[in-house]
Amino acid sequence: MQKLKNTIADIRALDASAMAAARQRQADLTKPAGSLGRLEELSVQLAGMQGKASPVIADKAIFTLAGDHGVVAEKVGNWPQDVTAQMVMNFLQGGAGINVLARLVGARVIFADMGVATELPPHPQLIVRKIGYGTHNICRGPAMTREQAVQCLEAGIELVEAEIPHGLHIIGTGDMGIGNTTPSSAILAAVTGKPAAEATGRGTGITDEQLRHKAAIVEKALQVNKPDPDDGIDILSKVGGFEIGGLAGVIIGAAAHRIPVVIDGFISGASALIALKLAPAIRDYLIAAHVSAEAAHPLMLATLGLKPLFNLEMRLGEGTGAALGIFIAEAAARTLNEMATFAEAGVSEGE
Amino acid sequence: MQKLKNTIADIRALDASAMAAARQRQADLTKPAGSLGRLEELSVQLAGMQGKASPVIADKAIFTLAGDHGVVAEKVGNWPQDVTAQMVMNFLQGGAGINVLARLVGARVIFADMGVATELPPHPQLIVRKIGYGTHNICRGPAMTREQAVQCLEAGIELVEAEIPHGLHIIGTGDMGIGNTTPSSAILAAVTGKPAAEATGRGTGITDEQLRHKAAIVEKALQVNKPDPDDGIDILSKVGGFEIGGLAGVIIGAAAHRIPVVIDGFISGASALIALKLAPAIRDYLIAAHVSAEAAHPLMLATLGLKPLFNLEMRLGEGTGAALGIFIAEAAARTLNEMATFAEAGVSEGE
Repeated sequence: MQKLKNTIADIRALDASAMAAARQRQADLTKPAGSLGRLEELSVQLAGMQGKASPVIADKAIFTLAGDHGVVAEKVGNWPQDVTAQMVMNFLQGGAGINVLARLVGARVIFADMGVATELPPHPQLIVRKIGYGTHNICRGPAMTREQAVQCLEAGIELVEAEIPHGLHIIGTGDMGIGNTTPSSAILAAVTGKPAAEATGRGTGITDEQLRHKAAIVEKALQVNKPDPDDGIDILSKVGGFEIGGLAGVIIGAAAHRIPVVIDGFISGASALIALKLAPAIRDYLIAAHVSAEAAHPLMLATLGLKPLFNLEMRLGEGTGAALGIFIAEAAARTLNEMATFAEAGVSEGE
Repeated sequence: MQKLKNTIADIRALDASAMAAARQRQADLTKPAGSLGRLEELSVQLAGMQGKASPVIADKAIFTLAGDHGVVAEKVGNWPQDVTAQMVMNFLQGGAGINVLARLVGARVIFADMGVATELPPHPQLIVRKIGYGTHNICRGPAMTREQAVQCLEAGIELVEAEIPHGLHIIGTGDMGIGNTTPSSAILAAVTGKPAAEATGRGTGITDEQLRHKAAIVEKALQVNKPDPDDGIDILSKVGGFEIGGLAGVIIGAAAHRIPVVIDGFISGASALIALKLAPAIRDYLIAAHVSAEAAHPLMLATLGLKPLFNLEMRLGEGTGAALGIFIAEAAARTLNEMATFAEAGVSEGE
């Protein structure tokens, strides 16, 4: 708990003078003012996060955390639980969507087993921080103990801190866990107080009837557990998941080290909701990559107070949306840093 | 004219069997069906364009064409005409937005002077295909002769064809020309028959009063010239521009060689409208990178029948939006080609 407390205490506000310098430079670059649109805003935000007038996006890492969920016993989706472990093996062999997109944007991927239901064979690229072998079924009681929730969060912080010596200018978040849209919906409903149906979507693809069932399961999880909407650790322990808690820790750890965080889709967003409850100051360090095809994602982004960078109707998770978001952040930083000013280029300015 | 006719005659429909093979592979990849959203559609489209089940996006070029516009005499914007030539010099020194973003996505940029008002100093990276020294003022008569319009188009085709031996899997379009949102608006109004005000936006940034003046200028250009809405060459010659015609040729040339075309913003879109009038078959080869902040761009995209990939509120031109669109196309092709299938990875499929 001390690690978590200390890390939260380390989070600082954005650096206003770095932002002012970046904003001034944007005005001097050879383009009509504002014509790079959201890239300009984002470059200024990155300057504030990193505390540098010229923010650098070169060393990039995506944290893709895996965990299983006892609530799959309620048949909330169509994929067998084994797929979590199988997909982790696919990650380690480089064949998943996140591998391809991380290679494309030049990001390394940190794969961590936060709570897959089975034992995975050791692999040099797999970090094992297992908090448990899948969560308990949130329909029948809490997902995990309060101690385990803190362990998830602190493990996430440590994952980020272990990467900093290798160079880390920006991170992305990603998840793998069959069934994990259900706890994510429960977290969203708990935080917003909205009915379960408004917080629940189709995940990997279910029918209308299955969707009603899934929303009823989310509702039941809330009734059984009664998470305290003001206590992030309570929400995480009662209706969360090990990878969700780990990612909340990753977010908190990154913010404490002034590292911008590109959040992926619905599960990463649930992690961000937990992180925000624990440490409102992380808000300034979040960049929402995209709005996913998951129906409740717009509500989640609005709750986080974030405007997504793009909408490509993606809903794969793993950090795939975050990878593309990291590319946009790099575009923002590099236009700010590398474009010539009017004076340098000898270009006349508009009136 | 023969070159143009022959090139148009070479344009083929999308390759249905390559598309079917790509679609089949998408269904076998280790992800829920459809979960990569628009990247999946786009990968199938790229397969159809290139005629390859595994489309390749490795060698990339952005064609950034420059030209001046006589209509600047009517004070349609706030930037002096000299800025066109100054910005071309900035391109050649590597300091403009397009330089930075093209470097980021690994695209080379082909800079061509299609009709800058002044003589530019020779430079190894500048291709000079000057059709004239700026167009005539479209408020008083046609921008150029019909022969010049054909010259623009054929020069554009030749620009693309000269690049093919260097490897060319995808192209982007880009423009530089002070005043060129005005002819682009005139083209849009001519093609759609909509009132000038609906086709006119703020360009690099003008006041409400200036916007009314600009729309009146567009209206006057249409009244004076009466372009035939069914004749692309007539529209181009009467209310177009040299770089706009060049880009229309680039688009036609690329389509004839099965090369996907990522179009940038409002000016590139006007070029695409001209290309589409001349060769309706180019439609299948177009990818709209983004919807720009220019007010009439949504109308233009709807007229082209294209759904943009993203909206970052950009309005710089130069091919900056196209550069980011090329990145998304590469993400689409690489996920299709590089992800493992369920069978390869030993991952169970959902029900």
